[in-house]
Amino acid sequence: MFYDAGMKSAGPGRLIRMRVKRLEKFITRLKRMPAVRNSHLCVGLDSDYTRIPDFIKKGRTVQDALFSFNRMIIEETWDLAVAYKINVSFYSLHGDAGLSALARTNRYVRERVPETPILADVKRSEIGSAVRMVAVELFDRLGFDGVMVTPWFGVDTLKDFLVDDTKGVVVYVHDSNPSAVEIQDLLLADGRRVYEVVAEKVAGEWNLNGNVFAEGGATYPEALRKIRRIVGDEMPLLVAGVGPQGGTLSALDGLFGNGGRRLLVNSSRGVIFAGVAENDADYRRSVRSAAQTLRERLLAMAGGIGK
Amino acid sequence: MFYDAGMKSAGPGRLIRMRVKRLEKFITRLKRMPAVRNSHLCVGLDSDYTRIPDFIKKGRTVQDALFSFNRMIIEETWDLAVAYKINVSFYSLHGDAGLSALARTNRYVRERVPETPILADVKRSEIGSAVRMVAVELFDRLGFDGVMVTPWFGVDTLKDFLVDDTKGVVVYVHDSNPSAVEIQDLLLADGRRVYEVVAEKVAGEWNLNGNVFAEGGATYPEALRKIRRIVGDEMPLLVAGVGPQGGTLSALDGLFGNGGRRLLVNSSRGVIFAGVAENDADYRRSVRSAAQTLRERLLAMAGGIGK
Repeated sequence: MFYDAGMKSAGPGRLIRMRVKRLEKFITRLKRMPAVRNSHLCVGLDSDYTRIPDFIKKGRTVQDALFSFNRMIIEETWDLAVAYKINVSFYSLHGDAGLSALARTNRYVRERVPETPILADVKRSEIGSAVRMVAVELFDRLGFDGVMVTPWFGVDTLKDFLVDDTKGVVVYVHDSNPSAVEIQDLLLADGRRVYEVVAEKVAGEWNLNGNVFAEGGATYPEALRKIRRIVGDEMPLLVAGVGPQGGTLSALDGLFGNGGRRLLVNSSRGVIFAGVAENDADYRRSVRSAAQTLRERLLAMAGGIGK
Repeated sequence: MFYDAGMKSAGPGRLIRMRVKRLEKFITRLKRMPAVRNSHLCVGLDSDYTRIPDFIKKGRTVQDALFSFNRMIIEETWDLAVAYKINVSFYSLHGDAGLSALARTNRYVRERVPETPILADVKRSEIGSAVRMVAVELFDRLGFDGVMVTPWFGVDTLKDFLVDDTKGVVVYVHDSNPSAVEIQDLLLADGRRVYEVVAEKVAGEWNLNGNVFAEGGATYPEALRKIRRIVGDEMPLLVAGVGPQGGTLSALDGLFGNGGRRLLVNSSRGVIFAGVAENDADYRRSVRSAAQTLRERLLAMAGGIGK
């Protein structure tokens, strides 16, 4: 099993990772990235196999195609990306082949850019002893630095992930999908909405060791603004739903936080499937151009940092 | 990869499964089971490798030990169990070895007792195209009949699972863990609690093809009673948290629904780790005895059905 064997080997990247790991809290590492990259772009490696171009799939196994595609995306975006976010479902769908490709991808990030955090977009929200099992799977086996969870079961879901302070937890406070409002926007007796309570807990009692932060969807600008007000200007805020999901960048106005560097904006399909060309060089150019364009628009909105 | 190769083979069990699959809706199958087994017991195969007895682990790989343990539990409980519920984290923790053991377990259930539904306790609540990927993974690759999801993202999480009406969805309306109340019990402006809204949606607008039902925790008896009132006496209700998690059977009083046969009570650790003996025969006896005892207590509460 590749992701068993591989995680035990200790190449130079692994050693660098161990060093970073021992020295730094997750949140410190994450907060530094927008300045390091002069960017707010988080790239989502939601690599739907059916959409990977044929020039990559041809002659390759599913595992090799998934990994080769991701490596190409990372090569073209590593200097623009403050983090990578990976939806595990796009890999576990393929069983061992997919999960091995995912572990190889995470190892490649470690070796190439050990400073860049990798977030597991799993929406798994276990309780009890199962949380520790998910932590071993995602952090040790697959090589993630952070995990994204739903708040439905309360703090029990978060606490075992936070035992190691080099690991972080992102809470889906308000997501970008159409039916997100059904539960998240319910109006409470005290005048708040359900997601506002979640935002308060993320900023307060759930933030057990300072490594918890919030996610919001660009398709609900008012909710995003409220979340920023509640969590304050120092906490990183991860925004999903820009681009193909319908969210516009104007929803991000005024949300960049301290120094204009506390916002992470995820783009998945908008970057990784930006290429239409059926050859390596042109596809790379399209991906890089899409990532650069989004990065520059975000920098302009953040107040021209570093310009 | 065992669970790729295996799922393609068509043994007699597979043929039976295909026949059942073509003929019946998930909910019809599930509702029939309490009468078929004269039982309300759902057995949770949360087979924590570290707790599997040594006489099983000795000389076996992780995959073989997990599968052999599950086969033993199924052999001792198949005639008492109306369903099996499996928390996928206990398997994915071990990578391919664990997931292969899980797929083998599900195939064994198909072959031995094709009438018994198997529920994936994953608490994964995807949205968008990722839902279809999880459906392929859980239903086609791993061989589950139903999936358990959190309601946080609304109906978007459910709808793609329900395309095939031989598959079901269980929604965590109110769970058994201590911090479940943090979000689930928030008081709304209209006097309801958040979980009551979820129960209403499960019984109504989310129940797109009749294959959706509710889960509640025995540690919150008042919430359980409200859920039963809201979803009505015809909908199956799955209860977790009995036994080691602190819920008492008295919490189930009056909740058995139509004919006393609409309640499924899950026990995981209380059954599968009931054995203390370090040999096969005694361990089996302990497991069977624990399952039988719980079954009989539930039957007595349900009004002595079949007695």
